[in-house]
Amino acid sequence: MEAPITTVHTPLRRVSIADALAAMARHAVRAARTERIKSADAEGRIVACETRAAVDVPAFARSMVDGYAVIAADVTGASANAPVRLAIAGSVLMGKPAHASVHRGQAVAVPTGGAMPEGATGVIKVEDIDVRDGIVTIFDATDCEDRITPAASDVRAHEVLFAAGRRLSPAAIGLLCAAGVAQVDVYRAPVVGVLVTGDELVPAHEPLAVGQIHESNGVAIIAALRALGFAARPYGIIPDERDLLETELRRALNDCDAVLISGGSSVGQRDHVPTVVAEAGEPGVVVHGVRAKPGRPVLLAMIGDQPVIGLPGNPVSALVMLEALARPVLMRMFGIDDKPKAFRAQLEKPLTTDASLEHRIPVQLLFGTSGLIARPLLGSSSQLHILAYADAVIVVPEGSGGLAAGAMVDAFPFSATRTP
Amino acid sequence: MEAPITTVHTPLRRVSIADALAAMARHAVRAARTERIKSADAEGRIVACETRAAVDVPAFARSMVDGYAVIAADVTGASANAPVRLAIAGSVLMGKPAHASVHRGQAVAVPTGGAMPEGATGVIKVEDIDVRDGIVTIFDATDCEDRITPAASDVRAHEVLFAAGRRLSPAAIGLLCAAGVAQVDVYRAPVVGVLVTGDELVPAHEPLAVGQIHESNGVAIIAALRALGFAARPYGIIPDERDLLETELRRALNDCDAVLISGGSSVGQRDHVPTVVAEAGEPGVVVHGVRAKPGRPVLLAMIGDQPVIGLPGNPVSALVMLEALARPVLMRMFGIDDKPKAFRAQLEKPLTTDASLEHRIPVQLLFGTSGLIARPLLGSSSQLHILAYADAVIVVPEGSGGLAAGAMVDAFPFSATRTP
Repeated sequence: MEAPITTVHTPLRRVSIADALAAMARHAVRAARTERIKSADAEGRIVACETRAAVDVPAFARSMVDGYAVIAADVTGASANAPVRLAIAGSVLMGKPAHASVHRGQAVAVPTGGAMPEGATGVIKVEDIDVRDGIVTIFDATDCEDRITPAASDVRAHEVLFAAGRRLSPAAIGLLCAAGVAQVDVYRAPVVGVLVTGDELVPAHEPLAVGQIHESNGVAIIAALRALGFAARPYGIIPDERDLLETELRRALNDCDAVLISGGSSVGQRDHVPTVVAEAGEPGVVVHGVRAKPGRPVLLAMIGDQPVIGLPGNPVSALVMLEALARPVLMRMFGIDDKPKAFRAQLEKPLTTDASLEHRIPVQLLFGTSGLIARPLLGSSSQLHILAYADAVIVVPEGSGGLAAGAMVDAFPFSATRTP
Repeated sequence: MEAPITTVHTPLRRVSIADALAAMARHAVRAARTERIKSADAEGRIVACETRAAVDVPAFARSMVDGYAVIAADVTGASANAPVRLAIAGSVLMGKPAHASVHRGQAVAVPTGGAMPEGATGVIKVEDIDVRDGIVTIFDATDCEDRITPAASDVRAHEVLFAAGRRLSPAAIGLLCAAGVAQVDVYRAPVVGVLVTGDELVPAHEPLAVGQIHESNGVAIIAALRALGFAARPYGIIPDERDLLETELRRALNDCDAVLISGGSSVGQRDHVPTVVAEAGEPGVVVHGVRAKPGRPVLLAMIGDQPVIGLPGNPVSALVMLEALARPVLMRMFGIDDKPKAFRAQLEKPLTTDASLEHRIPVQLLFGTSGLIARPLLGSSSQLHILAYADAVIVVPEGSGGLAAGAMVDAFPFSATRTP
């Protein structure tokens, strides 16, 4: 399709990233569906409803040490010079109820983690005793009352363990199992359709003719979505033709819960995304253009309750905007207000930026003598190698015009960069 | 098995965590095997050998904007008052070679990302022109030479993209695809056997009798290993009997590349791990006991080139030691010197610790007005809920006796805690 290049569409009305997110937040997004799975398999999954403990943890008072359960009042002041002698009245087996009780003048052997016998109020460590002829001689009873883990001291039955929206860590699924919660309700992965546009794109395994480049945005976006907990559905490479884009967008809106489109979101003649999305349904385009670099021609839309996000074709812009805009919008499908945590680091060298834009600069994080150092990786938004070698991204605010060397910055690690 | 509790084994000879790791580093570990997979599927995988670009990225000089390719010398000083007029000599199609060349007095239309025509040394933006009757009138030519992405400016063919040991991020697999590397050699997941010991343990889905607790360490350890890129193989819950432990350890050493054992690593009569591991082969036990809390009774051993690590039975101790000791040892199977990066945060309240030990305190990370705040979650090492709600762990050094409120601390996010 020969296209003499002449004019541009309506110029972008650029808003800040914060305002863009606020504008999208005024629209409800489709909530992820839920499913019940085994807690042991739930690592990385997001809890879909308030989850409560089934049992007390522990369900009984336990000894913290190998030793003898005693009545604390019997052993007060025991020392090497004035040892206390108690009659051994039995022993507790690991994993069994304590059948013996402890009465005044008695002691019951108890292993680490064993159930405390009835009546006992302290435990004497094996290091502080001698045992002979059914008698335990106690040389030190200091802190003996502190060696008991009370019943329900970790978790109380019916206590809320996790609110909805919590992503389950290995420790968290350990806690679920400890509390007898063998199954848990989690969100199913919402399906995000990924459309990649561009006449110039060919897959990595095919040879390149002049004018062509290997497709990389779709591959990276799909991997980043999966790492965040979404099911990414690829729609292949779509030539820059309006009808084809329209057909594929309709198909994706039908099959998926949200749609990401790489490329074609700017204002050139080959940029069909804005018009095709605008005509796809209500409320339509919410934001077109942000005052941020990289990322300017980004497009945020809602078709019903389905977010549709047009990411720039430049690979760095696409992945940085995926993180800054698409991620918080999509995470709302899990009911999550997505506020990434930052590494605090010292900027290694000064940065000069255009004050009219908010800038995101990929950085490497290095270990300095007094903490982390953020080393900016400068280059254009077409240089994917910069992002591939970055550990995090720092934000240089609009209006600042840059940052001085040595400035403390927040470095946001992000899902599109992942280091060992 | 009735076991009157009397004496202890050889006391632990405790070393620092750093010395424990250094002692393990003197033994070679089995290297992970490798496999070749599609780059698009390699997110999170670790590169097994130096990986080089197949092609230049981009393979040809590209225009950064929609506009007209010109000879820069033709348009110097063009302005609204003194526009420059050039004859339109053709147009470049996206994804195609530039068939037209640019000669003096000529311009060729070129789309964003299109191949630069031969002879052209600059690009005029569509915003700065007027087109009529085969003539383009240019009102501004400032920076026209900076609107070209030179061939190979992102990546040069045969350049090293990633060294061995690099974990591939979404951006990194994007870069591989962009550079025409459709397949990549990565490490296969080493198989780590997970043995959980304890007469008191029952699975989460079974009811508890008095004296019993639900198994959680194995579940959490297996999930953490999988998140780190290992294939965890569960060996179930093993009663505290020496022969059974010996049989299962032998089986695990036979089937797996490394073995983790939860519980039984201390010095009590029911702690069979030290003797069973010592007799399993050479060189045997390397470290038994560390000067760290939680974690003291940990055991590090090598059987041939297979690491065998005995983690404490207390759930917090087990997961903290998994991170501090097992993780760096196991990551060496990928040839990786595992140095986790830390969030810099301000300690919210003072911590007093036993100066004879290095302490690891789980913290929540909160957003304060001047950066991250680390809120210590205090409790005993039997309280799994503490770790399940933690974002990171801070280290209080041996000898310090604690930290003041407001102190800047390094908070290490870790694989056993994972937040949205």
